[in-house]
Amino acid sequence: MRKYYIGLDIGGTSVKGGIIDIEGNTIVKQEIMTESKFGTLHILDNIEKLKNNMLVSANLTEDDCVGIGMGLPGIVDNEENIVVFSNTLKWSNFDVKKEFGKRTTLPIKIDNDANLATLGETLFGSGKGAKHAILLTLGTGVGSGFVLNGKIYSGNKGCGAEFGHSILVKNGDKCACGRLGCVEAYASATAFIKYSQKLLSENPQSAILESIENLDDVTPKIVFSYKGKDQTADDIINRYISYLADAILQLCDTLRPEVIMLGGGVSNAGNALIEPLQKIVDERIFASNLAPKVPIKKATLGNDAGYIGAASLFI
Amino acid sequence: MRKYYIGLDIGGTSVKGGIIDIEGNTIVKQEIMTESKFGTLHILDNIEKLKNNMLVSANLTEDDCVGIGMGLPGIVDNEENIVVFSNTLKWSNFDVKKEFGKRTTLPIKIDNDANLATLGETLFGSGKGAKHAILLTLGTGVGSGFVLNGKIYSGNKGCGAEFGHSILVKNGDKCACGRLGCVEAYASATAFIKYSQKLLSENPQSAILESIENLDDVTPKIVFSYKGKDQTADDIINRYISYLADAILQLCDTLRPEVIMLGGGVSNAGNALIEPLQKIVDERIFASNLAPKVPIKKATLGNDAGYIGAASLFI
Repeated sequence: MRKYYIGLDIGGTSVKGGIIDIEGNTIVKQEIMTESKFGTLHILDNIEKLKNNMLVSANLTEDDCVGIGMGLPGIVDNEENIVVFSNTLKWSNFDVKKEFGKRTTLPIKIDNDANLATLGETLFGSGKGAKHAILLTLGTGVGSGFVLNGKIYSGNKGCGAEFGHSILVKNGDKCACGRLGCVEAYASATAFIKYSQKLLSENPQSAILESIENLDDVTPKIVFSYKGKDQTADDIINRYISYLADAILQLCDTLRPEVIMLGGGVSNAGNALIEPLQKIVDERIFASNLAPKVPIKKATLGNDAGYIGAASLFI
Repeated sequence: MRKYYIGLDIGGTSVKGGIIDIEGNTIVKQEIMTESKFGTLHILDNIEKLKNNMLVSANLTEDDCVGIGMGLPGIVDNEENIVVFSNTLKWSNFDVKKEFGKRTTLPIKIDNDANLATLGETLFGSGKGAKHAILLTLGTGVGSGFVLNGKIYSGNKGCGAEFGHSILVKNGDKCACGRLGCVEAYASATAFIKYSQKLLSENPQSAILESIENLDDVTPKIVFSYKGKDQTADDIINRYISYLADAILQLCDTLRPEVIMLGGGVSNAGNALIEPLQKIVDERIFASNLAPKVPIKKATLGNDAGYIGAASLFI
């Protein structure tokens, strides 16, 4: 009986894979280098090798499995099943389903990697039980994924869910995308670090400076370690939380999800981030007396969310 | 053979009803006063009368129809089929489906009236053919409705889709809801008029003042009639469009719908509003070189959108 699901999370550096059961438990997980510089055939060879190795390790064959889900970096048209564009893999309009289909007896489904991480986190992680859930990844940029009405929402031609580039501040700070005032320009780890550097250069008395050699070494982790002990640290954190709260309120008032899940480097601050954030959101959400509140939770699946979400395309 | 669909759009003043066919053509439409001050039973009597009158006028019986869709003002839990709260009708936790079900042989479905107007407009109006469409109603407030993946999206317990209360400007203008900087505080007809009054009181030379007796008489329609002929009119319109464009860009970058549809009083400005708006959105949308653009269209069904959307819950 077919009761296992294969998930592959294909990144620029490595491919993370796992085989899960219907309850999201990982039977086996493995990783292989993508080696994308050697071209598409080589990438597919590596993915096939990973798939076969996992089956052997789990003492399974393809006949024990329902399907293979693949998470891919870039714009994926999940209706046409085409990778429209992936800068990371150097693919454009590539029919990976057809090409990888030659290397397996199983059906294949594909989607964008961030969408699938959101699906995994919603089904089996911090969003378990929710029909409407949003994952924000607070890293170099701000990634976002939406599960609405129980399904991945990715907009026209898979180009939606770019909440990191929604306008947060009119004519605001410059974003990596070249536009002004995007959420990412305020709520990414990059923005956190940039503002930390600015405040630290203006506040040479800050205790934070004792633990770094120069301003390039500052990280959200270091700043959070001074929370409540250093005014500059508190100023940096409060400003970050204030903008992130505004961004989350945009999502809550517009879509009223059942949960907002936070991943990425900054989310490792845990309760030092989430408790004050939740307080602001609870106070300021629209119709707070009538409508359900929106809990904010730290994502729990980490790097496994991608392959778990990919595999669960068949659940 | 059952091939007609009954839609009822229940408002505080009147109930608008129609019977449509599968292509959204209206066979008959009628209206009756709600008379909500006489209480729930009286409201239901009036709705029943309207339903029966329409059937007689169309020379149909309930046996010719598939079902009755009802649009209701307020928070509607469309999973539990309960009107959670309607200030307009003075209903709370009211099971209208069960109560009105005693007055018909047909199945009933209910949803929020704004959601249903969006569904109607998406299926048979300016959004025809779109799977992902958003309606913004620029009136006293800013209403919003979402059709995503071909279905009404209304968030947890039907409390979503309040884009009018998404934050547009941090610590910005006061909104009717009591909070600061909501979309509604910049993009409603009310906000348009308020800013017009401010600029007109500062610019007594404006030609707009020739056509009104006092500042209370100013309307978007009057201001738009001076577009290109009066500096104050242009300043008012440009500011309004600039904020509305930011609001629409939030939606486009976050959800990448296939169309944004504009209804409500301000939308009657037509191309004088939509052309400059479209230009800004096209220029500033994220990934404009790769991802599909989002056309902005004037809603076409007007007051009929509500009953058409209600009826199409059964299509």
